[in-house]
This record gives sequence, structure tokens and C-alpha cells, in this order.
Amino acid sequence: MDIIHILDLIGTFVFAISGIRVASRNDMDIFGATVVGFVTAIGGGTVRDLLLNNHPITWMADITYPLVILAAVPFTFVMGKRLNNFSKTLFIFDTIGIALFTIIGMEKALSLGLSPFIAGLMGMITAVVGGVTRDVLCREIPLIFRKEIYATACLAGAVIFYVGLEFNLPNNLNYLITTAF
Amino acid sequence: MDIIHILDLIGTFVFAISGIRVASRNDMDIFGATVVGFVTAIGGGTVRDLLLNNHPITWMADITYPLVILAAVPFTFVMGKRLNNFSKTLFIFDTIGIALFTIIGMEKALSLGLSPFIAGLMGMITAVVGGVTRDVLCREIPLIFRKEIYATACLAGAVIFYVGLEFNLPNNLNYLITTAF
Amino acid sequence: MDIIHILDLIGTFVFAISGIRVASRNDMDIFGATVVGFVTAIGGGTVRDLLLNNHPITWMADITYPLVILAAVPFTFVMGKRLNNFSKTLFIFDTIGIALFTIIGMEKALSLGLSPFIAGLMGMITAVVGGVTRDVLCREIPLIFRKEIYATACLAGAVIFYVGLEFNLPNNLNYLITTAF
Repeated sequence: MDIIHILDLIGTFVFAISGIRVASRNDMDIFGATVVGFVTAIGGGTVRDLLLNNHPITWMADITYPLVILAAVPFTFVMGKRLNNFSKTLFIFDTIGIALFTIIGMEKALSLGLSPFIAGLMGMITAVVGGVTRDVLCREIPLIFRKEIYATACLAGAVIFYVGLEFNLPNNLNYLITTAF
Repeated sequence: MDIIHILDLIGTFVFAISGIRVASRNDMDIFGATVVGFVTAIGGGTVRDLLLNNHPITWMADITYPLVILAAVPFTFVMGKRLNNFSKTLFIFDTIGIALFTIIGMEKALSLGLSPFIAGLMGMITAVVGGVTRDVLCREIPLIFRKEIYATACLAGAVIFYVGLEFNLPNNLNYLITTAF
Repeated sequence: MDIIHILDLIGTFVFAISGIRVASRNDMDIFGATVVGFVTAIGGGTVRDLLLNNHPITWMADITYPLVILAAVPFTFVMGKRLNNFSKTLFIFDTIGIALFTIIGMEKALSLGLSPFIAGLMGMITAVVGGVTRDVLCREIPLIFRKEIYATACLAGAVIFYVGLEFNLPNNLNYLITTAF
């Protein structure tokens, strides 16, 4: 279990929390909130894997992902409003999650021999599809289309990672630089 | 044509009717209602087959499914408001459809060697994606996220079916017990 | 680069413009508008390719498609309200795009040995999924479910093309007749 996998699971956890919170805010019951949490957390990676014909889908092969998401349900409900005190922390993890999901998506696509341009698109799909689906299910106008910070995090992740690749940075170092930024 | 296939087609028919009715209630024309009927009836199975990389997609290989859905269009419009008198029957079939779709999804996943946990998720996806997409297309808050009965039917289907498997019940018997419940 | 490919790219361009315009009208920023433009233009073909297990997805193999869509972004914003003067032209291209996307979808399905009925469904999916997703993302009731002209264009495309096939018309001629109609 390397650093990337751990960061990926943290990103999944934070994305699931965001889905559960938006769902609860829209008066969904716990089942609905769980579904929205799942979709938010794995939607992007799933669409990416389908587009890349990359089977089995990541979360179907590695059961840690669904378990992390299920763990986010009681966590979110127990924490309740107290999570608001951590909104800045959540926001930072959310942004880290987006940048990280972008990088993971790009790397998968590059490793399959796709061009950097298409790989960049795959990265963005990985990062944004989950949140967009969450907002569609909860009937909110997708946040990412309104808050430039998300798009910027996503684009920055892609560009920095690609520059890093070009300069032949060691992979893990590259991940850390991009995410830290 | 065994009992499961017939129940599956009945479930498809009832799901299509529910899609067509929700669409009509939202002032869609007959073309829109047909599309929503299709998506409601085959959405879940399609997403499941894509996730499982199970090609050809069920309804593309067995033309009975689209034909049953097309048959539901004139049926629903001819019956019109009279369907309200059967709302209890429709509700029962709807619940049966959900339990049944859950089981069929689970079985497909188990037969491909997936773990029971992932198979359970596949079952739920088969059962709920159609109805959720119907509600998104018609701009209603997804029903399944609000009416616990649906989630319960779905979960019960999964658990009972799995317990049945463990006890090595004959397959068809297991199907009937689960659905009857 | 034959005539069909050029028409396909024009259809992609016009679909992207329609996505960008609907998004802008709903106060999305330029990033959101670009995403909606992409989804509108390639959504239908992507879902068709996934259903047909036709990899790589068309726009991932031929980078011209994403480039045409990216080009539509500055074009739409520079033209701005002046595009309203061309609304009739845009509408014609839109209709041509729908008929053409229907034909391309049908042809792909037929070339993979599917029955004409399923191929017709694939054609319609290619033609309508993009526009429907655009409307869902922008929270408008899907246009195609309300304006019969679209459904008609789509159906006419399918039927005429199939009749043409039956009579063994040369392929390119058949394309032109169908689209012109």
C-alpha cells in the first residue's frame, strides 16, 4: 500500500462525505445518501475505466474503496454539524482529491498509450464526473461549473503532472509535488 | 423460456409502464415517454452489463426486451387513468421487479466470480439505476431515495438470495422464495 | 477524409455550439460551458460505443473531434448574440446533425452484425443522448421530449437509410439522400 493508494482512499473518503452531506441537505434518507456518496466517490473513476475499457473497474477489483465509502456514512452522520467546523479542512482535502483524481486518471490513460491530450481529458473526467452526478441527483446546479477553484485545481493538476513527466521526475516525487501545489 | 425469464420480462414491462406514466405526468410527448420507458426498464441492466464487461448487453442480444417495452407504450396510453385502479397491483409488481432485478444482477456477478459484496452492489445497481434515471429525466427527486420500501425490497432480495445460495437451495426454488417474500 | 467524416465533424461542431449556448444561458462559467459542449457533442457516440463494446471510443482514437469541440468555445463566445441571426441555419445544421448521427450509429451497429431493429435504437441513442444530457446538466426539461421535429428527424433518418440499404444504393449516395431529406 503505497502513498498514492492511501491518498486515493482519503480522496474517496472525502468525496463520499461530500456526497452524503449534499444528499442529507436535500432531505434524502440514509439509503439515498449512501447511494449519492458512492456515486460521488467512484463515479469519475468508473466512467474513466469504462471509456478506457479498463476491466475490472477499479472499485470492483479492490474492495477497500466500497468499504471506505460505507465507513463514511456513519462517520458523516455521527459528526453531523460538527463537520462544519472542519469545512476548511474538508475543502482542502476536496481540492487535493480533485487534483489527485486528475493525476490518477491521466496516469492510467498514459500507461495505456493514449496521447497527453486525451489523457488530460481522462484526468478531468475522473475528477469531475462524481461531483457533477452528485449535483444532478440532488438537483443542484453542478458546483464545478460555477466555482472556478475546482476547474483550476483540476487543470493545474494535469499540467504540473505532465511537466513533471517530461522532466523525468521520479513518479512518487512528481505525485507529491503536484498534489502539494 | 423458464420462469425467471418470464418474471424478468414482467418486471421489464412494469418498469416501462412506470417510466411512461411519470413521463406523461410531466407533459412529455409520446416519443419522450417511450424513451423514458426504455431507460427505466433497461437502465439498470445496461449499467450492470457495462460494469461487468458483459457483452452483448442483455437487451441487445434478446430482442424480446425492447419489444416488451414498445408494447408497454400503447398499453399505458390505452389504459390511461384506468391504471390508477390497479395502482396496488402495479406497486406489487414494481416491488417484485426490484427484488427480481436485484437477484438477477447478483447472479450475473456471482457467475462471473465476483465476491458476494460486489455482487450485492451489482444487484442494487440493476434494480435502482432505471428508476433513478427516470426521475432525473423527469426532474423529480429520485423516489428510491425517499421511499424506504424500495431500498428494503432491494436489500431483502439480496440478503435472502445470498442466504439461499449458502444453503445450496435449488436455484429456481431460491428465486421463488426470494421474490415471494 | 470523406464526405461523411466532414459532415460528422460539422455535426459535432454544431452540437458543441448548442451545448455551450444552453450552458451560458444558464449562467455557467466558461469551464462549465466547455464541459457541456463536450458532453452534447460526444455523449451520444460515446454511449453507443460503450454499448457496442466498440473500443477505442471514436473521439479518443480521432483527436479531430475534441479539437473541433474546443474550437467551438471561442467561436461561440466571439459570435455571442450574433449567433441568434443564424438561428435558422443552426437549426438546419442541428437537424442534419441528428439525422447524420442516427445514420452513423445505425451503420456502426449493422457493421457489427446487429439486427436492423437494434441498429435503429443505436442510431437514435447516438443522436439523442448528447442533447438529453445537456438539458439534464443545465436543468432544462429535455428538448427532444417536447419538440417532435427532433424525433421525426431521427426516425426519418433511420427509416430512409434502411430503405436505401435494402435497395443496395451506393453507400455515399444513400448518406446524401438521407441527410438532404
